[in-house]
Amino acid sequence: MSVADLPGPLLSELSEGEILARIFPRLPQADLALLGPGDDAAVVTAPDGRFVVTTDTMVEGKDFSLDWSLPDEIGVKAAMSNLADVVAMGARPTALTVALAAPTDTPVAFLEMLADGLRDACSQVAPGCGVVGGDIAASDTLVIAVTAFGDLAGREPLLRSGAQVGDEIAVSGLLGVSGAGLTLLQRHGPQARENFPDAVCWHLAPYPAIGPDMVAELAEAHSAMDISDSLSLDASRMAAASGVTMALDITVVSAMADAVARVSGLSMNEAQRMVLEGGEDHAILATFADGGVPEGFIPLGRVVAAGTHAVTLAGEGIAPAGWNPFAG
Amino acid sequence: MSVADLPGPLLSELSEGEILARIFPRLPQADLALLGPGDDAAVVTAPDGRFVVTTDTMVEGKDFSLDWSLPDEIGVKAAMSNLADVVAMGARPTALTVALAAPTDTPVAFLEMLADGLRDACSQVAPGCGVVGGDIAASDTLVIAVTAFGDLAGREPLLRSGAQVGDEIAVSGLLGVSGAGLTLLQRHGPQARENFPDAVCWHLAPYPAIGPDMVAELAEAHSAMDISDSLSLDASRMAAASGVTMALDITVVSAMADAVARVSGLSMNEAQRMVLEGGEDHAILATFADGGVPEGFIPLGRVVAAGTHAVTLAGEGIAPAGWNPFAG
Repeated sequence: MSVADLPGPLLSELSEGEILARIFPRLPQADLALLGPGDDAAVVTAPDGRFVVTTDTMVEGKDFSLDWSLPDEIGVKAAMSNLADVVAMGARPTALTVALAAPTDTPVAFLEMLADGLRDACSQVAPGCGVVGGDIAASDTLVIAVTAFGDLAGREPLLRSGAQVGDEIAVSGLLGVSGAGLTLLQRHGPQARENFPDAVCWHLAPYPAIGPDMVAELAEAHSAMDISDSLSLDASRMAAASGVTMALDITVVSAMADAVARVSGLSMNEAQRMVLEGGEDHAILATFADGGVPEGFIPLGRVVAAGTHAVTLAGEGIAPAGWNPFAG
Repeated sequence: MSVADLPGPLLSELSEGEILARIFPRLPQADLALLGPGDDAAVVTAPDGRFVVTTDTMVEGKDFSLDWSLPDEIGVKAAMSNLADVVAMGARPTALTVALAAPTDTPVAFLEMLADGLRDACSQVAPGCGVVGGDIAASDTLVIAVTAFGDLAGREPLLRSGAQVGDEIAVSGLLGVSGAGLTLLQRHGPQARENFPDAVCWHLAPYPAIGPDMVAELAEAHSAMDISDSLSLDASRMAAASGVTMALDITVVSAMADAVARVSGLSMNEAQRMVLEGGEDHAILATFADGGVPEGFIPLGRVVAAGTHAVTLAGEGIAPAGWNPFAG
């Protein structure tokens, strides 16, 4: 299916008000919205007198492709990358705003389906979280900038600078699957979806384990962050912020690589590179006091005193590598 | 000056971390930020347990032109369009997030200057408001999506639905100047700035009267909204939301047109069209109980019972017209 084939009017054929009237009813409502979309601004409850806020942008041709993604998958991905950042602070997601820049010849049905994806993402991992406002602008390039809000419920925010020597490193889910899905799409195009649906669909519309249980499981964490760029890159950032070295366990990395190879058909060598250097799985990287890793997490190594390398694997330093938006 | 002539490295020549390290120090800090940029998300104080939030996007080639604007002017404009929406709710702006999508061959100096514009805007109209987070993505089209936050300090938000029959209509500043500046740029290109600097600079980098005094002056308003698309269009929206007709005074509109003609050289006929149909002055349209228009506002007419037309001028219905992002 191509975007141009979607039935119904184009953005250029309706007024901004008519466009919004079609999209608003499909968007999830936020339990904490005192005033939703439709005025100059929204008003949202901040129960403990603070709010967590993060923003993440997706650009067509760079962060996603209309040749690969269905419109609702783009909505899911845009929501998840932001919701994961909120959860990685130890907060419950409460609301989103969505700034969309789209070509004037975009079918309104495309935006309706994108709204459906935002709704599906919220209902799956952040029930009660909804869209409280947004903006639509005309642009030659399709850009989706989501800003997400969260409630800490009186807790301190979980920082990437809190890792302590002796902590266990753990991760909330499998790594490398999204990177493997991207690699398959780059090599084989859209038909990769048929051959390796698990990896490709996870790349296009991930559903990471960042639901209400995850916020509870992070209650005792010393540090946490969303792995959006790659394990090696994001672990190196945690290492730098905390002044430690992150010593990763080769056994767990190999087991993850095995799982990635199975769902993607990639070689073990490539699969291990995906685990270490692939992005966009949106698992939570966290550290816990020795013995304190909660059930939903996979132990991945140990925080040690800062050494020559920010990140080691089986005791050897590894070079952080992963997603860089401005590379070449 | 062309963007490509700016000295120093391009976005593609630095890592995301190196880029952010150059930009962050130039951004204004938010007094209410408990945790600023650098982690997965920021944490901001919401003093009365609520926050106001709005988002507005600017796209190169549609909402601004690199042939006309200096980078810091783009920053000013992006900030003001959002700050005005917060103030129009009766709230004090507290924080911004900025999602930027830019071509990889953009000089980092361009973003530094854009950050300077964000800082200048905040320091002029919203001291204490700062940037608490952001994102930089690669894009063929330059897109700036700002999300702004505000504090109501215990007051009820000012809605566009609150206009009451018998209210006086008033506006916080001159209208039509930005539209006139845009018209001059479209007709004469960048040299319009030299001939009519007041109109052109106001269009490129407006400094509307939305400072702390304005929030105080709005305390007794029945309704308010930011005039971003045009007086006729935004007044028609207030009329629809409030179930009233907005009866505008021809004397005031003519006086404004006279002022617009003087700073732009446009004919009185064109200038009056700019007052009614020009956008982006970011004055606040508000209604007050009879006799209650505060000193800083210009009385502009009267709210009357809903009639055939949403907006009238000298008793005659006028067709709302103004900015539509998807027109043509």
